[in-house]
Amino acid sequence: MTKVGVIGGGQLARMMIGPSVELGLELRVLAETSDSSARDRTTSVGDYRDLETVLAFAREVDVITFDHEHVPSDIIVALEKTGVAVRPGSAALTFAQDKILMRERLEELGHPLPVWSVAHTPEDVSIFLEANGGRIIAKVPRGGYDGKGVAVVTDPEQLDEWLARGPVLLEEMVDFSRELAQLVARRPTGETAAWPVVETTQANGVCAEVILPAPTENHNVIEVAAELGRQIAHDLDVTGVLAVELFETADGRLLVNELAMRPHNSGHVTIEGSVTSQFEQHLRAVTDIPLGSTESQHPWAVMVNVFGGMDVQRYGRISASSDVKLHNYGKEARAGRKVGHVTATGADVSDTTSRARAVAEIFHADI
Amino acid sequence: MTKVGVIGGGQLARMMIGPSVELGLELRVLAETSDSSARDRTTSVGDYRDLETVLAFAREVDVITFDHEHVPSDIIVALEKTGVAVRPGSAALTFAQDKILMRERLEELGHPLPVWSVAHTPEDVSIFLEANGGRIIAKVPRGGYDGKGVAVVTDPEQLDEWLARGPVLLEEMVDFSRELAQLVARRPTGETAAWPVVETTQANGVCAEVILPAPTENHNVIEVAAELGRQIAHDLDVTGVLAVELFETADGRLLVNELAMRPHNSGHVTIEGSVTSQFEQHLRAVTDIPLGSTESQHPWAVMVNVFGGMDVQRYGRISASSDVKLHNYGKEARAGRKVGHVTATGADVSDTTSRARAVAEIFHADI
Repeated sequence: MTKVGVIGGGQLARMMIGPSVELGLELRVLAETSDSSARDRTTSVGDYRDLETVLAFAREVDVITFDHEHVPSDIIVALEKTGVAVRPGSAALTFAQDKILMRERLEELGHPLPVWSVAHTPEDVSIFLEANGGRIIAKVPRGGYDGKGVAVVTDPEQLDEWLARGPVLLEEMVDFSRELAQLVARRPTGETAAWPVVETTQANGVCAEVILPAPTENHNVIEVAAELGRQIAHDLDVTGVLAVELFETADGRLLVNELAMRPHNSGHVTIEGSVTSQFEQHLRAVTDIPLGSTESQHPWAVMVNVFGGMDVQRYGRISASSDVKLHNYGKEARAGRKVGHVTATGADVSDTTSRARAVAEIFHADI
Repeated sequence: MTKVGVIGGGQLARMMIGPSVELGLELRVLAETSDSSARDRTTSVGDYRDLETVLAFAREVDVITFDHEHVPSDIIVALEKTGVAVRPGSAALTFAQDKILMRERLEELGHPLPVWSVAHTPEDVSIFLEANGGRIIAKVPRGGYDGKGVAVVTDPEQLDEWLARGPVLLEEMVDFSRELAQLVARRPTGETAAWPVVETTQANGVCAEVILPAPTENHNVIEVAAELGRQIAHDLDVTGVLAVELFETADGRLLVNELAMRPHNSGHVTIEGSVTSQFEQHLRAVTDIPLGSTESQHPWAVMVNVFGGMDVQRYGRISASSDVKLHNYGKEARAGRKVGHVTATGADVSDTTSRARAVAEIFHADI
């Protein structure tokens, strides 16, 4: 039986548990604490930044994959040298870990990007600000997530602290009409499978709602986004699931915002929405078995995150909406924390969205 | 977090793992060996016939449920006396454990049954044989499953050994046109939910194929079967999933064959076929949270068991049938053993059946 080792014990590792069982894989998780979200399959507890911890974990598995992109590059390279399969590999992962490297590489490859630059000094910031309307986005190249390490900048002084620690990525404020995400899976053999592009809504820089497929009258968007996702997965030699976060502009262009090389919040909707969920597909991809169908099972699927706290005792209030599925991450309540999500499916997008929101609201517990 | 304890570590316990994670329940399994099918959640290893073993396991959980019906009644009664919730309870379970008690009770309640009798002596067998065409079915009342403890009898001498051990249930050879199974879930509060009745095909006394819903031009069958299932669940005070195995006769009557009070092979098809699978529903029922929708997600879903051995390396051969889902039970190969199943879904029943059979054939490995 193939043993898959996941570094990181969050909800992404947790949601791989069900599919791993059905596929007959042995899932093992290296988590930072014994009560992580993926505690049911946590076989090692330790720091993913500690080489010995990670190497010991890797000796017990056939393939290593990830719940997050925070494992230091030198550790991933050291892992690869031991001969264990690391998917995605260090060469691909670096573009999900370092936003400046990602921008440089995607630009070389000719993919559509926002206007961007790298600032080393406050003067660099001033020049970019002036050229881009006096209001720009700044990002620390490494370690940011869910809105952390991202700032709207109107004054170079705002970046003094970040610049003291190293270069900062600057981007134009894209005047987007909405945000989309393209998910695609890729096997080591090169086989790819793309789901229909989804529409995502952020709240305070964090993914809050996802609609599968992205509502559009222009079917071209679905095809263009899928092809872009496949091309990036191929160009960067990604294995596993790749999420390409996109801006759609008023004039219909798609610009690449961020990349993630793992199951992604925008793909949770595939659990009920698609024949093959992103979690099953990620496991198939990293163990190099043929990918499953990415066809939709319903006209619409809508996912709404639950933040803060989650009270499952309130199941009793939702019997009338019984085709809304709850996913509980088994986490302690904390302000702003993603503690679960719900997904509704249906034939009408606004009805489906309303049902998902209503159930998320019911489960959401004040903390 | 509610802790659910499952006695028995087979594939039924295994297939509860995924839903338990998403519902945020803590699943614990008492298995007979550490390498059981449900080993990923096996927290205790021991003999379910040993009172101390079972009591120690029960102290760690909030509710006890079952992977099989072989736990002795006195142990279940002792469990209930400790105050732990046992679902289904001993009063209900006895009708799934003892086929004579089941026949007696269902007859009292007026449910439709084959002609039956209890034999204590060879003379009893002779009389029943003569009255029923010289060819009957005999069953040991307790402990039989998957064709074991069941015999076709034409000569009373065949039953000498069984009669020496106790009474034997005799039944007419029902001239059925096909076999069906009605699954229904019931909560302690009394809420029930019935899936559409399925058609089952047996091979050597073991479930081999299941079609959801049972093909019929007479929609009445679906309603009659659902109402029968709900009524039996109510009458016997079942909690959790109840499977009612049925014979459909040429003149359209439904006769109760067997009962099982747990997820059942005939319900595996609900994983892909229904909004709520039997495994999720069983967990909802035994933890007393409102039941999910039993609506179908596809016009047809067809399940085919894989017996003997299963070679998942053959995934490579099924990329063209990628909407067939594989369920691997993680068992060692052994002649005749259920080692997994596949489910196909689709718009046409014969195409869906063909695809499921073809993929089951691919995965089936000679041993």
